[in-house]
Amino acid sequence: MRSGGFVSVSRPVITSIVLILSLYCFHVFALKSQLLTRHGGVTDLNAQDTVINYETCYFDQKIDHFGFLEDGTFKQRYLVNNEHWDQKGGPILFYTGNEGDITWFCNNTGFMWDVAEDLGAMLVFAEHRYYGESLPFGQDSYSDTKHLNYLTSEQALADFSVLIRELKRKVLGAQESPVIAIGGSYGGMLSAWLRMKYPNVVVGALAASAPIWQFPDMVPCGDFYKIVTQDFARSGLNCDINIRRSWKAIDNITATDDGLQWLSGEFSLCSPLKKTDLDGFKAWLQETWVNLAMVDYPYEANFLQPLPRWPIQVVCKHLSFDPSSVSDYQLLGGISEAARVYYNYTGNCPCLNTSSTATGNLGFIGWYYQACTEMVMPLCTDGVQDMFEPQDWNFQAFSDECNSLFGVRPRADWAATVYGGLDIASHSNIIFSNGGLDPWSSGGVTRNISDSVVAIVIPDGAHHLDLRYNNEYDPHTVLSARIQEVEYFKLWITQARKLQIPG
Amino acid sequence: MRSGGFVSVSRPVITSIVLILSLYCFHVFALKSQLLTRHGGVTDLNAQDTVINYETCYFDQKIDHFGFLEDGTFKQRYLVNNEHWDQKGGPILFYTGNEGDITWFCNNTGFMWDVAEDLGAMLVFAEHRYYGESLPFGQDSYSDTKHLNYLTSEQALADFSVLIRELKRKVLGAQESPVIAIGGSYGGMLSAWLRMKYPNVVVGALAASAPIWQFPDMVPCGDFYKIVTQDFARSGLNCDINIRRSWKAIDNITATDDGLQWLSGEFSLCSPLKKTDLDGFKAWLQETWVNLAMVDYPYEANFLQPLPRWPIQVVCKHLSFDPSSVSDYQLLGGISEAARVYYNYTGNCPCLNTSSTATGNLGFIGWYYQACTEMVMPLCTDGVQDMFEPQDWNFQAFSDECNSLFGVRPRADWAATVYGGLDIASHSNIIFSNGGLDPWSSGGVTRNISDSVVAIVIPDGAHHLDLRYNNEYDPHTVLSARIQEVEYFKLWITQARKLQIPG
Repeated sequence: MRSGGFVSVSRPVITSIVLILSLYCFHVFALKSQLLTRHGGVTDLNAQDTVINYETCYFDQKIDHFGFLEDGTFKQRYLVNNEHWDQKGGPILFYTGNEGDITWFCNNTGFMWDVAEDLGAMLVFAEHRYYGESLPFGQDSYSDTKHLNYLTSEQALADFSVLIRELKRKVLGAQESPVIAIGGSYGGMLSAWLRMKYPNVVVGALAASAPIWQFPDMVPCGDFYKIVTQDFARSGLNCDINIRRSWKAIDNITATDDGLQWLSGEFSLCSPLKKTDLDGFKAWLQETWVNLAMVDYPYEANFLQPLPRWPIQVVCKHLSFDPSSVSDYQLLGGISEAARVYYNYTGNCPCLNTSSTATGNLGFIGWYYQACTEMVMPLCTDGVQDMFEPQDWNFQAFSDECNSLFGVRPRADWAATVYGGLDIASHSNIIFSNGGLDPWSSGGVTRNISDSVVAIVIPDGAHHLDLRYNNEYDPHTVLSARIQEVEYFKLWITQARKLQIPG
Repeated sequence: MRSGGFVSVSRPVITSIVLILSLYCFHVFALKSQLLTRHGGVTDLNAQDTVINYETCYFDQKIDHFGFLEDGTFKQRYLVNNEHWDQKGGPILFYTGNEGDITWFCNNTGFMWDVAEDLGAMLVFAEHRYYGESLPFGQDSYSDTKHLNYLTSEQALADFSVLIRELKRKVLGAQESPVIAIGGSYGGMLSAWLRMKYPNVVVGALAASAPIWQFPDMVPCGDFYKIVTQDFARSGLNCDINIRRSWKAIDNITATDDGLQWLSGEFSLCSPLKKTDLDGFKAWLQETWVNLAMVDYPYEANFLQPLPRWPIQVVCKHLSFDPSSVSDYQLLGGISEAARVYYNYTGNCPCLNTSSTATGNLGFIGWYYQACTEMVMPLCTDGVQDMFEPQDWNFQAFSDECNSLFGVRPRADWAATVYGGLDIASHSNIIFSNGGLDPWSSGGVTRNISDSVVAIVIPDGAHHLDLRYNNEYDPHTVLSARIQEVEYFKLWITQARKLQIPG
């Protein structure tokens, strides 16, 4: 049994941005070694008093569900809490683990812990293969393309299905328990897909901030950064305008060695900038603004970084000056102050490290591999509708970089084929929740598809705010979303009980 | 362009019986070499005048859809006829190829040819990987377990989905064409599963004689042989009783060398029986009765063998004597005459070959491999409710034999996990048609599951009679089934047009 109490919530899809940006800046090889350095632990800024308890269990999963040559197994980790579970067929809320350590998602999906008692539910958090402790080949899992071959969403969904069936078979009282899949971000995509592909295994799914349409030819690639930009535009006067101007200011100032040195000092960078670092520096800044857009929560939280409430408003206080009245130096001074809100809210950070933007609980290499195979999620900027430097989506360049990095090529059309693309109307019992502030809502399902494939939009919510613990500063829209979600759960449970097939 | 005119229809799931019996008789190694000898061509007894034309095409399919290490492709064969196709979005009827040469299924699925004009439909017949010409590794495809690794139903479904999307993208006018999956037997299972797993790709499916429930813990393993027995019981006085008695008579007579010799002569066997051949001889006879039950069609046809109309009635004429009044010799004389109805209806067969019961158009080894991996379909007999010698279903023995034959072990629970088992109510737009005479209806869906997952039962129909050409001797029940099927097709097409998502 272990306990924990993080309040910040999972937010991992960012890693695809890291990859995409990095590839675009042709920093792949530099990045490669950097990726291998796992980031440090997270300081918990405002841990809730809640102490959660769970049992840590392991299940022998087939390494390959889709072939019979590789018949080996690995230990899949999953966490269980049945404190509130009604043993006479009470429901199971099943978290479909994302690309990271499952204890982190367990500790950060307060919603499940908040609703367990009301529903009489068992909670299960299943770790995604190749992340955390669930390594198909132990320390060799990431050693080469051959060992990475079983890292796919289809294998992960099969893991979840096999595990759920096993739990229902083995746990006394669980035979008739309806199972509801819950996940956020990539985990939300998995929960939706689990319901789509294995409706015999889960009666419904809550897919929070799940960009299932952020794939080629489904949504405009520029929407993501447009939303980031809108978040800054509405959080303070001139905020987006000053950021849009900052890229040119960086070019101007770093044209000289003195300028480079000044910029490194102004940002208190841990390693002074070289001319060749500039693309990486800009990518790091861009990702900082993206991260802020995702974690723009209405209360102090520690997500990717410890942050104040409504962090973008705090950032924008440093960027409110009239853009026509300031020099490049003054502008970048403001940018530097703004960046510190993200990186040094605690005041404990002696210098800023441009090789890191987020938590170490995420499995970066694994996600990079997934982005380089199935999870092809085009993003682009035009500098007009967004505040970034223009960058097209270039599949061929992306594919070439993936090939040099992992020896694999992405299949641009596969996700649409296997997961239905825009055409998901024939499915049932899926809630897609999205936050209006969340850039990933660009690829989310934000309108009802049918009576039972429904969208819940939380206008003032960032990245899956609804999956977090209740908080006194929660806007009423997220409270109402959580109430609706639980109502759907109850409906699905009732439906399932009516339909139950004996045996 | 090629033409053909077979009238007999696909009927391939029998191969699993061959395997199971053979394994049970521990003839695996003998069988192994036998399997490698492909059977001869089929004589067309009563070819229709219909000449069908199709274009033979090839598509580059990924060898592995579920992993990225193996990035090679192979040529998947598919056949197209668009003679009646309404190029302004007319539907596509897509045959999901079974375990055999696709031209055979194309020539034998007269229903699709009969309805194409009424529906303004394009016809596509897609070959299943590892069968016919669609060999992922050419001549090496069956060389070892490693090369066989991509022979799974999931890979086949992915092939179909990728191909359909490609056709819709590339064929002028097909962008908006609703696609309906059609298949019989294992091909019917695939058509149902295609709709379940890729509802974005096909708007509905006709799964004819598809035993999707013939898996562990879904239906009683004895039902299959009970139906075979009922077919004989209702086709002539004493017919099943005499067959039930024949096994003991074989034991009695073959206790001596003279008896063995007599039996070989009586059956005109090509190779005289040895003591060690007895299990194989009984298995061959048992399979003969099973085959007859499947092809008990109301008119002359050439399916696995050229046969008269209602062949079991003809067989039973040789087995109508009072069982208490005949000697073992007389009984087996009748059995031998009965077997000749199946093997020598044309009178051209100089001797009976106990190593073969069916057509050479089926891919035996491939299906054996599939039965040894995913397609675990328990069958058993008790000698009481059926006319066979009692034989339990023994998974462990089966698994051991598979392991010695292919180096793989079957996964008994996988089909239920991946394809939903009995719990298929959340799907839509699937017709399960079954013939009351068909032993495979034991594992079929013979009751409506919902408004749109429906069952059509054809009481006097054998194995997917509804997929055959219209025939003057067709019972009204199959004519009515075909009319209902086309009505559902039209409904799905209308629904699809209403739902169509642009782009």
